[in-house]
Formats: sequence, C-alpha cells, structure tokens
Amino acid sequence: MSTGRTVSFTRGVPPTDAFPVEEVAECAGAILRQDPAVLLQYGKSAGYLPLRQWIAEANGHGVDDVLISNGSLQILEFLSQALLNPNDVVFVEAPTYDRAITIFRRRQARVVGIPLQNDGVDLDAFEQALRQEKPRLFYVIPDFQNPSGATTGLVKRRRLAELAEQHGFWLVEDVPYRLLRYYGEFEPTLLSMAPGRVLQLSSFSKLLSPGIRSGYVLGPAEVIARLAKVAEDTYITPVLPTQGIVYEYCRRGHLERNLPRLRDLYRPKLEATLAALARELPEAHWMQPDGGYYVGVNLPGDLGSQTLLKRAAEAGLVLTDGNGFFPEKPAAAFVRIPFCGITISEVEEGVARLARVYRELRR
Amino acid sequence: MSTGRTVSFTRGVPPTDAFPVEEVAECAGAILRQDPAVLLQYGKSAGYLPLRQWIAEANGHGVDDVLISNGSLQILEFLSQALLNPNDVVFVEAPTYDRAITIFRRRQARVVGIPLQNDGVDLDAFEQALRQEKPRLFYVIPDFQNPSGATTGLVKRRRLAELAEQHGFWLVEDVPYRLLRYYGEFEPTLLSMAPGRVLQLSSFSKLLSPGIRSGYVLGPAEVIARLAKVAEDTYITPVLPTQGIVYEYCRRGHLERNLPRLRDLYRPKLEATLAALARELPEAHWMQPDGGYYVGVNLPGDLGSQTLLKRAAEAGLVLTDGNGFFPEKPAAAFVRIPFCGITISEVEEGVARLARVYRELRR
Repeated sequence: MSTGRTVSFTRGVPPTDAFPVEEVAECAGAILRQDPAVLLQYGKSAGYLPLRQWIAEANGHGVDDVLISNGSLQILEFLSQALLNPNDVVFVEAPTYDRAITIFRRRQARVVGIPLQNDGVDLDAFEQALRQEKPRLFYVIPDFQNPSGATTGLVKRRRLAELAEQHGFWLVEDVPYRLLRYYGEFEPTLLSMAPGRVLQLSSFSKLLSPGIRSGYVLGPAEVIARLAKVAEDTYITPVLPTQGIVYEYCRRGHLERNLPRLRDLYRPKLEATLAALARELPEAHWMQPDGGYYVGVNLPGDLGSQTLLKRAAEAGLVLTDGNGFFPEKPAAAFVRIPFCGITISEVEEGVARLARVYRELRR
Repeated sequence: MSTGRTVSFTRGVPPTDAFPVEEVAECAGAILRQDPAVLLQYGKSAGYLPLRQWIAEANGHGVDDVLISNGSLQILEFLSQALLNPNDVVFVEAPTYDRAITIFRRRQARVVGIPLQNDGVDLDAFEQALRQEKPRLFYVIPDFQNPSGATTGLVKRRRLAELAEQHGFWLVEDVPYRLLRYYGEFEPTLLSMAPGRVLQLSSFSKLLSPGIRSGYVLGPAEVIARLAKVAEDTYITPVLPTQGIVYEYCRRGHLERNLPRLRDLYRPKLEATLAALARELPEAHWMQPDGGYYVGVNLPGDLGSQTLLKRAAEAGLVLTDGNGFFPEKPAAAFVRIPFCGITISEVEEGVARLARVYRELRR
C-alpha cells in the first residue's frame, strides 16, 4: 500500500531544472536568423557541418570522423544495419542498456552477455566467450554504465582495446554520461586506445536536452561514410535547426559552463541514493558510481521479477523490469535507480519502499 | 561543352527565398520559452502532442490516428519494418520516388512497377498484376506525382480504394505536394475513400522547410500504435523543438498565409518549364502537372541512361539518373525536372541544354 505520491525508478531522464531554457531559446533565434539557408534546407546526411567540426575539434579528430543523428540510439540502429548480418554475434555487458539489446535483436543478431564487475567486464569470462565465438561487435558503456553505474578501469580498457585489435571486432563505446563525473579522474577512452577498432557514441541528451535529440558517433572515416549512406537512405537529412541550436550553445561556451552546474545538481542525489541503500538495504549489492545517472542494485534471493514489479507498484514505486537489462535472465533480481530526474526525498522514499517490499517478499 | 553556369535538375529542393526565416525564428523562441519542460525532455514516440492534435483536426481525424517523425521517409522506413516481411510484394507507380524503392528493397521486398499514365496508374496493367500476386502494399503519390507530375483522377482513385478493400492490401498515399496546387480543383484523398486501408504520409518539407524534418502519417489508430513502437525502439522520441516550431507556425496561421505565396512563387516556374519543353523538345513526352515540384520527361529513342547523364554533365546540366525512378529499366530515357528550387532562366537554360544533348545523341 502506498504512503504518499508514487516514486518512479524508471527511465534515465534529466530533471526539468537542468534545462537552460533561456539560453537555448536565445541560441535558437540567433542561429536560425544567421544560417537559415542551411538549417531550413536539405543537407548532408552526416549532419550540420559547424557542429560536426566543433565535435571533431573537441575530440581531436577530423570532421570526416563525425556523424550526427537524431539521438545516438538512431546511430546504433545505423551501425547495426551497416555492420551486422542476421545471426552475427554481439557481446554486451550484463547488465547493459536495454534499448541496445532491442536494436541488436531487431537486426536478428545473437546477443551474448559478459558479466560486469565493479571495474568493467569479467575478463576471464570475456576471454572464454571469445574462444568460443568471435563477436562482430562488443557494445560497452565504460563510464558510469547504464544500468549499473560501474566504470571500466584502465587495465580492463587496455585489454578490451588489445583484444578488439587482435580479434578484429568492433568496440562500440557508448559515453553519454562521461562528462558527468562527480569524483575521481577521467580514464582514457577506448577510442583513444584503438582508434581503428572503436566507434564511440555520445549525445547531448544528458548534458543539454534529450528532446533536442542530438547524438553523434566518432570513428574511422570509412565507417562514418557507410553510416552516412544508411542515414541518407533512411531520412535524407537529420533534423538541422536543433543541431544549429546545439552548435550555437557550444560555440558560446554555455556547455562548458553548464557542466559544473549539472555535476553540483546530481552529485548530492547520487550521495543520497548510496546513503539510503546503505541504511535501508544493507543486504543488497550495488556498485559505487563515480558519476552518471544510475545506481544498479542486485537483490539477493530468488525474487520473481514480475512479482517484484507488481508489489513495488502496489507500494507506490514504479520500476523498470530489471530482466530487460540482461540478454538472459539474471541470477538475482536487479533494480536500476535513475537518481538524476527525481528529488532527494523521492530517492529516499523510493529506496525505503523498495526495502519494505524486498523484506516482505523474502519473509 | 558548358555555356555558362551549371544548371541542376537533381533533387526536389525548395528555393531559399521560400523560407519564412523571421517567422520561424520568432516561433522557435516563443515555443521554447513556453513549453520547455516538454520540448527539451524525452517524450512520446508519436510526436509533440499539440502538433499531432493540430494535424488531426486539420484532417478530420482523432489524435491517435497521427504519428509525427523526423521526415516522412523515416515513417516509410517504420511502415516497412512494421508491415513488410522479406519477399513481400510492393506495388509502386512506374516511375516513382526513387528513395521509396530503396526503402522497400532494404526490407528485401520485391518491388513491382505499375505503369503510370497522365491520370494515374494503368488500371488494366494493375488488375492484371493483381491477378498474378497480391501486394502487401501499394505506394502511390496521387497528387503531382514525384517524379512525373501526374495527378490521379477521381475514377482511378475510386478503383484503387475499392481494390485495396477488396484484396486487403495497404495503400500508402504520399501527399507532400498536395497543397501546392496551381490550377484546378482538389481530388478527394484515398484516405477519405478507404480509411481502413490507407496510410497517408505527408510532411512540412515542401510547405515550410525540409531541414525541420517534420513528416507525419495519418491512418488507423492500431497501425499508428505499431509504428509508435517501432519509432520508440529506433530513437525513443523524435526531435521535439522543431515539432514545437512547426506547431507554433501553424497555430499562428502562418502556414495558411504562406501557401498562396508559395503557389505564386512556383506557378510561373512550372509554366516556364512547360513552355521551354514545348519550344525546345517538341519530340519528347511529358505530363501537364497542375501543381507540385516536378515535370517528368520521356525522351524517345534508345538513349543510354549513363551516356545521357555524362553528356548532359559535359554540357553543364546535372541530372539525376532517370532509371532510379523505375523498379525495372524503363523503355525510354527519363528526365525529372524539379523546377521549384531553380530560377526561370535556369529552367530555360537547362531545357535548352537537354535539347542540344538529346539531338546530339540522336544524330
């Protein structure tokens, strides 16, 4: 039975107060008046050239290494079309981003999960899986992973890069949360370690606005050109005025100034989540994220995932089905807490409700 | 050899002076300040609700019958994913929109062309094809067809609607040019004739801006719901700020006021195209469009398509490969003249160059 308003631990959405509304509106008016003949017209399928250049420079790449699309999930779909054939094998971290599994399976790929540890995938399990079959690609989220919060450490990054080059598979490195680091030092990207074998996805969804749907990919120019062809055949041109807004927002230095504000907004929510878990659910297991949007919680004991969902909903807590983050049914019930979009009191109330439901089910 | 600047008869793009820049920039600033919590956030995959409502009301439908995406080609891709299986048969007009053929073939459909006449498809050929095999869908552009300029007459519209209901295939009615009628009366839509069997695609690309990439589909709510699921699995949410701009532009009455301006801009270009053809290429065949963006020209005699392209380019005229508009190689060389995006003197010079090249090749 619910005690007060429903709390939602569902999707990873930013809170409304993260949106720099006035700056976005000003950038929109300015760039539309400045470059209408390009922004309102059909254009190149790889995206708005000034924004491609800005992204390329910010990452030390050439402009031909960059394609921008209507969100980075759309690019994962293009990647799947360009690189995967039916029955190809795709490795993912287990757990991983549920929508990525859907994209790969839609392309009739066989998705294999490699267990994730606090510092990245279990290398023994990975190398054993590699001995059995070569994947076409390995999809990893090395920084503040969705849904677990784990960050891949330097040693494992190096090994991933080595194995990709040695076995000739693609590393798809998804880094939308990377700049939202609340503690510690940045690890080098996989892209910097194996530039010929990595396609790095990122997006402005978590740094500026999801509705603006500006995602991008960095990678070898010949693969980018193939993706641009798939993109052209799908929608001719991505949406350009919003790419213009993002460009103007970045060019004016707003993005750089906004990052500390976002970190200050989200860090206390992460701390509250971890404190609530330690207080309310000491018997559960979770990783200690250094940034990002999520804390993933494993609940020991044989809980039915659907039962947990149902009982949590009755207690006023809406969860996403934890099984959806795994290619195969996981050993323990898994709950993702996306803490950024909710208030600290919602985090605390949600974890308390989760603990009550968990204890009832374990009784 | 070229005599002056290159003339381009390639893609159907609007001229820059068709863009209402100041109004778009004002609408952008206004709607982003008014509804930022929706426009900058993740949202429903079917699109921005106020614009869905506006489109639904403008067409006498319920809001559940409308999905908006990042351009209507993207919706054709979703339709293909939702409705087609490999080896399904798709009928198209011959010639038809080249990018539609690409979309269907990417889904491994078998694309069958039904010859197009001045008043719509050849019904005898269509009914004969129907006796041989039932298509899963028939893709038609009834108003000012791309690439021919033909408009399907009332009698043929009725028959198409009847046959779709009788044989249980989908009519995909693509109407992006419909409101750009320069002469004569509107024919009823296929959607109005067989609402249970028609999916009507349209877009704001030719009425407002292509770069803004707002396309939509009207159809039975249960199919729209299936498309919304495919859309969610592809990009979660379409780009929202641009849908907000389109909504604000329509709500303020700008769209309605802009239509007569566009018709006045394009009608003289169509007239100049037809006059130039009559003067320079009397031996060719073309339809007399009552609106839209294109005049399609059949050049009698056995011209190699690639030779024509090459020689035209040498003469300073860039063409799109006419064969691309046909599922199978056409009997005569075909040239599409997209007259809206170029000036009247470019139209005249381009047709004169085409005539010179044609006569050289026929010599």
